[in-house]
Amino acid sequence: MKWFDTHIHSEGRSVEDLKRMADAGIEFAVTCAFYPIPPEHPETLLDLFRKLEIFEVKRGEKAGMSIFPALGVHPRCIPPKYEVVLPAITRGVAVGEIGLEEGGEAEVKVFKAQLRIAKENDLPCIIHTPRNNKEIITEKALQILERISFPEELAVIDHLSPSTAEDVLKHGYYGGLSVQPGKLTPSEALAIVEEYGPERLMLNSDAGFSESEMDAVAKAGNLIAEKLGREVAEKAGMENAKKFFKV
Amino acid sequence: MKWFDTHIHSEGRSVEDLKRMADAGIEFAVTCAFYPIPPEHPETLLDLFRKLEIFEVKRGEKAGMSIFPALGVHPRCIPPKYEVVLPAITRGVAVGEIGLEEGGEAEVKVFKAQLRIAKENDLPCIIHTPRNNKEIITEKALQILERISFPEELAVIDHLSPSTAEDVLKHGYYGGLSVQPGKLTPSEALAIVEEYGPERLMLNSDAGFSESEMDAVAKAGNLIAEKLGREVAEKAGMENAKKFFKV
Repeated sequence: MKWFDTHIHSEGRSVEDLKRMADAGIEFAVTCAFYPIPPEHPETLLDLFRKLEIFEVKRGEKAGMSIFPALGVHPRCIPPKYEVVLPAITRGVAVGEIGLEEGGEAEVKVFKAQLRIAKENDLPCIIHTPRNNKEIITEKALQILERISFPEELAVIDHLSPSTAEDVLKHGYYGGLSVQPGKLTPSEALAIVEEYGPERLMLNSDAGFSESEMDAVAKAGNLIAEKLGREVAEKAGMENAKKFFKV
Repeated sequence: MKWFDTHIHSEGRSVEDLKRMADAGIEFAVTCAFYPIPPEHPETLLDLFRKLEIFEVKRGEKAGMSIFPALGVHPRCIPPKYEVVLPAITRGVAVGEIGLEEGGEAEVKVFKAQLRIAKENDLPCIIHTPRNNKEIITEKALQILERISFPEELAVIDHLSPSTAEDVLKHGYYGGLSVQPGKLTPSEALAIVEEYGPERLMLNSDAGFSESEMDAVAKAGNLIAEKLGREVAEKAGMENAKKFFKV
């Protein structure tokens, strides 16, 4: 089967790792903008976006997969004068990775500004939720989405946990299942798909700057296919993503 | 034996790859500034330097090795207003990777400006030579070094080939032997060390954004130890580098 990994940071991986992904059946991947330290200059993100669009896309081709860049200002790397970056975020297949990490005022401001641009431009958004205080911060992100009437079908709330899945899905948003040691196991991803159905769920590996299993989406997808059937796996592992990202 | 890899681009490798280096006995490595597309903003290089100093050093520690950043403007990624970047290049363990790629006017100007700063600050320089027209461009780089009376003991001319080694070494500069598929084989590196002696030679892998063997320096070093003795291997694979970079 072929898979769509909806959230990676390809920059953190070697070209050999991208080949490993392709060999595991990952046909498409969205690589999300992120800078591993808070940049001091907004221009750094402008060049980062170009790097994703030019260099990462080319590395994907070499490895045998299609990489699509998502462009945005991650809450952990907000530069001074972030407004400079905003006009560029519409160039990606999605606006991302955006969202809240600790949920402070600056983060909320940058998150809202990007959501408004995405809404105006009818662009899907990849919305990060953090490891710490996941429930509280997820709830806060959902409130912001509702307050600006952000279209449910344009938002994927990412890094769902067994305890945030229900809230996200009952509001009608997409949920991202990050399968990776330290995040969800394939079995935990399977359990969430089994409980809520595959209609609004998408698999990803979040492979990037930390130690990563490159075939995590294939592993989870194959487990879902085995336990819940091929059609369910195809929805969560490919079809929903193609629809969401319009590729 | 323990090794010093004098030229890598750690950003292009995963944290697992850095662990593979450490496991192969690579104790120290210099990671050279490079941006894989020509940046449109000089600020991008300023943040890149910070990324090398903060994030790459930390990744090295996690992997069990010491990574030292070399900071400079590579001839393949000269931004507009490159002068903005120059005051920052003295912060690294060396100025690098600098040099000539095609050898045009802009490249020469940026190269000279950085050499002058390195000379003033008594800093070692890692000087790139290209794959194409290697002999001609190396010759041009050597002429520039002589014209500004750059101290021989502060320059390593990198990516030596069997045909550029003699010229570089007879002028008294250090030579970098990049052992990597597509560059030198361990046997070719051995042959150069055998012919010219180890006094001014240093091993590196140039591991980075392309496919790379992480243990290339250890492989070449072990071969040199086997054929020419441990002391010779230690000079080319560790001691010369410690002296050159003053670490």
